[in-house]
Amino acid sequence: MEEAETTHHDDNRHAEKMAKKKAAREKIMATKTDEKGLVVVHTGKGKGKSSAAFGMIFRHIAHGKRCAVVQFIKGAMSTGERDLIVRHFADLCEFHTMGEGFTWETQDRARDVATAHAAWEKAKDLIRDERNSMVLLDEINIALRYDYLDVNEVITFLKDEKPHMTHVVLTGRNAKEELIEIADLATEMELLKHPFRSGIKAQAGVEY
Amino acid sequence: MEEAETTHHDDNRHAEKMAKKKAAREKIMATKTDEKGLVVVHTGKGKGKSSAAFGMIFRHIAHGKRCAVVQFIKGAMSTGERDLIVRHFADLCEFHTMGEGFTWETQDRARDVATAHAAWEKAKDLIRDERNSMVLLDEINIALRYDYLDVNEVITFLKDEKPHMTHVVLTGRNAKEELIEIADLATEMELLKHPFRSGIKAQAGVEY
Repeated sequence: MEEAETTHHDDNRHAEKMAKKKAAREKIMATKTDEKGLVVVHTGKGKGKSSAAFGMIFRHIAHGKRCAVVQFIKGAMSTGERDLIVRHFADLCEFHTMGEGFTWETQDRARDVATAHAAWEKAKDLIRDERNSMVLLDEINIALRYDYLDVNEVITFLKDEKPHMTHVVLTGRNAKEELIEIADLATEMELLKHPFRSGIKAQAGVEY
Repeated sequence: MEEAETTHHDDNRHAEKMAKKKAAREKIMATKTDEKGLVVVHTGKGKGKSSAAFGMIFRHIAHGKRCAVVQFIKGAMSTGERDLIVRHFADLCEFHTMGEGFTWETQDRARDVATAHAAWEKAKDLIRDERNSMVLLDEINIALRYDYLDVNEVITFLKDEKPHMTHVVLTGRNAKEELIEIADLATEMELLKHPFRSGIKAQAGVEY
């Protein structure tokens, strides 16, 4: 009996606490009224930078909105999501794989610089095209980090030429501070634990 | 002429550095030979916990592997990915939405506890079914955090009953320490910047 009363008391306190939380949340949300295209950055050493960006691409597809992906570094990303998009949703999402592998794979700086510039030209065209609601620049941070591309050029373009309602998502570790500075939404994926440390290899459906 | 030589010199140094990086990476990767089903945790206050998990679900689908999703808290997740899966890939991915909204929406602890337990029973069935290569327990961390579900029960099941090759992904902020302890792969999504702070509301294709 006593236990039942305590539980009942706890449930009431819980309900009260949750009612407050709900009211507070609704009050905050009511102040959020603007819409605009966001500059989104996913960085950090953890997993999920590209996957979380692809999540947004898939949401766009689910809503029937047009989007596009430019992959700055080939092989950096899992091919799973790309295959799925190319096979099923090519009418809603354009896909351009411009890079030629991680920079330590190609070992040719001049070629990497040329590739990064070609990818950036394609990215600009896609962002300027207002039919696209979102453009994902996958692993562009790697090209920016090695100065294959000038971060100021990218920032100036995003500020001055990006259509107001277009979302641009930029992924890759070591995002430049200047880029995070101008982002509307920035997330750092931090690695807490990794299976490679226990000798587990990359597996289909997880890493690729 | 001098500039060209400097560039050439820089390019050589870059190639040398990258060759070392490539060799080091290949040496490390050669030691990673095991395969096993992983316990994966996505936590933190940042964006992308569920999206990155859905990325792995989409990779499974792209590889033609069976998987399943149990959604512990309805409305916590974007409906975009769910809609896409239910509409296009129902043959490869079972989807169960068990929760009834954030706990501050329902304001009924007893009902939340019952719902969490029903979701967990479904989750166990799906994990035991070895046809599933991956099972995503979306937002289970919220149910664990409020002790709707006992974390020790979940950990014991993952250790003793999860089939060796099955991947289980657990998402939601405030993951319990004990859960991170037993995870093979754990990532914390940290919020660096959020558009709500500038009065921007949730937008289709981004948040949902």
